[in-house]
Amino acid sequence: MTAYTKLEQRFTRLSRLSDALGILGWDKETTMPLGAAETRGEVIATLSVMAHTLLTETETTELLAAANAEQDALGVWQRANLREMRRQHAHATAVPADLVEAAARASTACEVRWRRARGENDFSGLRPDLQWVLDTQREIGQAKGEALGLSPYDALLDQFDPGTTQTFIDPIFAEIGAALPELVGRAMEQQDSRPEPTPMDGPFPIAAQKALGEKLMRAIGFDFERGRLDISTHPFCGGASQDVRITTRYDENDFSSALMGVLHETGHALYEQGRPADFLAQPVGQARGMSLHESQSLLIEMQVCRSDAFLRFLSPLLCQTFGDQPAFEAHNLAAFLRRVEPGLIRVDADEVTYPAHIMLRYALEKAMISGDLALADLPAAFNDGMQRSLGVCVPDDASGCMQDVHWPAGLFGYFPTYSLGAMTAAQLMQAARGALPALDASIENGEFGALVSWLRDAVHGRGSVGETPAIIAEATGGPLDPSIYLSHLRRRYLRD
Amino acid sequence: MTAYTKLEQRFTRLSRLSDALGILGWDKETTMPLGAAETRGEVIATLSVMAHTLLTETETTELLAAANAEQDALGVWQRANLREMRRQHAHATAVPADLVEAAARASTACEVRWRRARGENDFSGLRPDLQWVLDTQREIGQAKGEALGLSPYDALLDQFDPGTTQTFIDPIFAEIGAALPELVGRAMEQQDSRPEPTPMDGPFPIAAQKALGEKLMRAIGFDFERGRLDISTHPFCGGASQDVRITTRYDENDFSSALMGVLHETGHALYEQGRPADFLAQPVGQARGMSLHESQSLLIEMQVCRSDAFLRFLSPLLCQTFGDQPAFEAHNLAAFLRRVEPGLIRVDADEVTYPAHIMLRYALEKAMISGDLALADLPAAFNDGMQRSLGVCVPDDASGCMQDVHWPAGLFGYFPTYSLGAMTAAQLMQAARGALPALDASIENGEFGALVSWLRDAVHGRGSVGETPAIIAEATGGPLDPSIYLSHLRRRYLRD
Repeated sequence: MTAYTKLEQRFTRLSRLSDALGILGWDKETTMPLGAAETRGEVIATLSVMAHTLLTETETTELLAAANAEQDALGVWQRANLREMRRQHAHATAVPADLVEAAARASTACEVRWRRARGENDFSGLRPDLQWVLDTQREIGQAKGEALGLSPYDALLDQFDPGTTQTFIDPIFAEIGAALPELVGRAMEQQDSRPEPTPMDGPFPIAAQKALGEKLMRAIGFDFERGRLDISTHPFCGGASQDVRITTRYDENDFSSALMGVLHETGHALYEQGRPADFLAQPVGQARGMSLHESQSLLIEMQVCRSDAFLRFLSPLLCQTFGDQPAFEAHNLAAFLRRVEPGLIRVDADEVTYPAHIMLRYALEKAMISGDLALADLPAAFNDGMQRSLGVCVPDDASGCMQDVHWPAGLFGYFPTYSLGAMTAAQLMQAARGALPALDASIENGEFGALVSWLRDAVHGRGSVGETPAIIAEATGGPLDPSIYLSHLRRRYLRD
Repeated sequence: MTAYTKLEQRFTRLSRLSDALGILGWDKETTMPLGAAETRGEVIATLSVMAHTLLTETETTELLAAANAEQDALGVWQRANLREMRRQHAHATAVPADLVEAAARASTACEVRWRRARGENDFSGLRPDLQWVLDTQREIGQAKGEALGLSPYDALLDQFDPGTTQTFIDPIFAEIGAALPELVGRAMEQQDSRPEPTPMDGPFPIAAQKALGEKLMRAIGFDFERGRLDISTHPFCGGASQDVRITTRYDENDFSSALMGVLHETGHALYEQGRPADFLAQPVGQARGMSLHESQSLLIEMQVCRSDAFLRFLSPLLCQTFGDQPAFEAHNLAAFLRRVEPGLIRVDADEVTYPAHIMLRYALEKAMISGDLALADLPAAFNDGMQRSLGVCVPDDASGCMQDVHWPAGLFGYFPTYSLGAMTAAQLMQAARGALPALDASIENGEFGALVSWLRDAVHGRGSVGETPAIIAEATGGPLDPSIYLSHLRRRYLRD
């Protein structure tokens, strides 16, 4: 048996562990009784350590070295697989086991603390645990940076979005940041000149919301033989290979947030369900990174499902589901679902103001990791940034720097992928429109097959065989270009 | 750190793996989409192999040897823990890894085949896979028998019910077997002389059945902070430490089977939820074995919940839940829920005829393991046994030797624990009645606290600190005595 084949077997075992963790994590958020939380944490930690050991033990290192000599005998996918194995191995071996464990304990403790502290608007109560998390993440950034030849923050970014660096992000965010204030201002002016949208008349029974969500998921291409839709406090796409589980939360008085959430997660799920069948359990078969992943959710949620064509398709479905009402007219849905309004909360932000939330977090987390920003100064810096970028006055830390779970959970380097994803989505949609001239007509007819096939060829089925820039360039003809995103925003929100 | 302490850490990791497998198994039966079955099988196999490796690797063997010298410094529970570690280790090391894997693959394949073959009443279609399972189980019995100094069948028994042997079972089953035919005959005669029970008038909405089940679970002492009730095709008690999950299946036309199933599984769950808190993740903190486990489910389902006292408690609850009807009168419930009738299907059998089903399977599986019975002759032997013991004519293999999943699943040596459990339940209930003179009055008032406390002291909280015979003797003052079970049956069914 070749070293490469042995590595494939080893990474298959890793994939099984990761699948187990995926189901245990899904269960924790959707199903687990509260009293099991502590033990479940231990179970998840134990499996995580086992995966880490499998990835880092001497035999893996030796097999990776031995596989070098076999490189020429391998095909394109196998060679890319080896590259991805090396990447995972480099990340994992860069960090000593006790630091991995400390970081896991810190973020578990801090997440629990955060839930209470946010409820009580008590940043100083959160600070000690958050400091612990930050310290461990800085150490991880340092260690991985040294191993990978990256700055600490770039090394953290690389965990979520392989290959992405500050040098790549900075000019892109600068271009968006320069254009955004005027764009937001003009969009709101135009919006203010139009009549207010007719309000929707609830309640909207949860069973009906769920049925509509499932109907749309099916129409778009979600495979319920290999996936589920459930309820959790924080919507996510998780589960395991061949078992992709998305969640939402319902509000009887507002169907739109659950519905748009379901469509968002469906975009993620299509990516997971469309990964290359022959390499599902291998690194090369995994989704390429979080910015491309987010591009898939936002392509469905924002590019497709907030388009005029989709809203014309949705309008009669809403009438069928909840009974006819004037607010369900497509034009009114557009006014309602594409409302621009600078606000406090990132997850509630519209497509136009969203990047401002991200750019602020990006700047702050870079400074926290570099040591330029102390946690004691985070609330003021956050509030100041909100005031300057969106003109929004933050009334308390609960709706300010404590609103997101990411930092308590140790996810430094994750935020930028949301906006990179939004830009990638715009660029992919432009390319898809070029390749499929009847795309909008299909969407209006509720036919998504051609689009999903195109995405499958261009993105989903590529797994990690190419790096993100290569996937974008092959699919769209060029590198990630923020002006395409800005054009999309101008076209949609300024009617330019 | 002492060798013993290192062993405790090691077995804690094993417990986490086992918890993970418990949740993955629960999910597989209740939640998993069908298309995930194959990958889930691989995930479960991978974790099982990891657990097996952890238990059998050299370091474990060495630590167990080193811990011998520390024995004197250990307390009673620690010493018992070490004994149980050795037992698990002996079972696991007795079987080579490739045989473990072959047995797992055989039973996985055979279970799938069985579902179809039973549907098609096709024993010859099942036979090749069942032969594969039987061969691997005979090999396992052989290997474990040699390592443990037991006969192959005793070694298989020992997996489910440590310490139980044919020598122990044979005279007990002989006593039951000798008394049963007359008892069944007389019970049916008496039954025939009474009027037929008034039929229940459905439908019984599933939501109401579920609410009633949960209410009774809560009353009896099930802790929903550390457990759940869900739906599966085959009811079971599973899940993980601090997360005990029972399942049932509902029939709109008959609430009693789901309800009695829920009460049965609640008995299992009380055992799991009552295990010793300080040793939850250690071998000594585990439930002692399947016959004691079954004694707890049958004590609740049969001894308590089919008693006159309980039926007087249940009667008004049924009226509240489903609306008043004459069939809910306690006397009628008794006639309905304690009906004796020799039948084809073990899981539908009443308390009096049930042991006959078990004794037949016990005789057949002993003969299959010893090689005295070839699979080709199994259907005829099964049908012949049913005719002789219960006077029942088996019309087809689907309702004959193919009715149970146990053999296809490789569970040879499991069946006897059902009847040993029934006898143990009768003996424990007799002892509880002695210790708690007001027990029946409490049950009639829906108060189960004193009984559950008694069970917690006598059984649940003992974990595996004592062997099964010791637990029974301490709790009841003597060894397992089948005449107590026969007396119970006579009292309840013959009004002797």
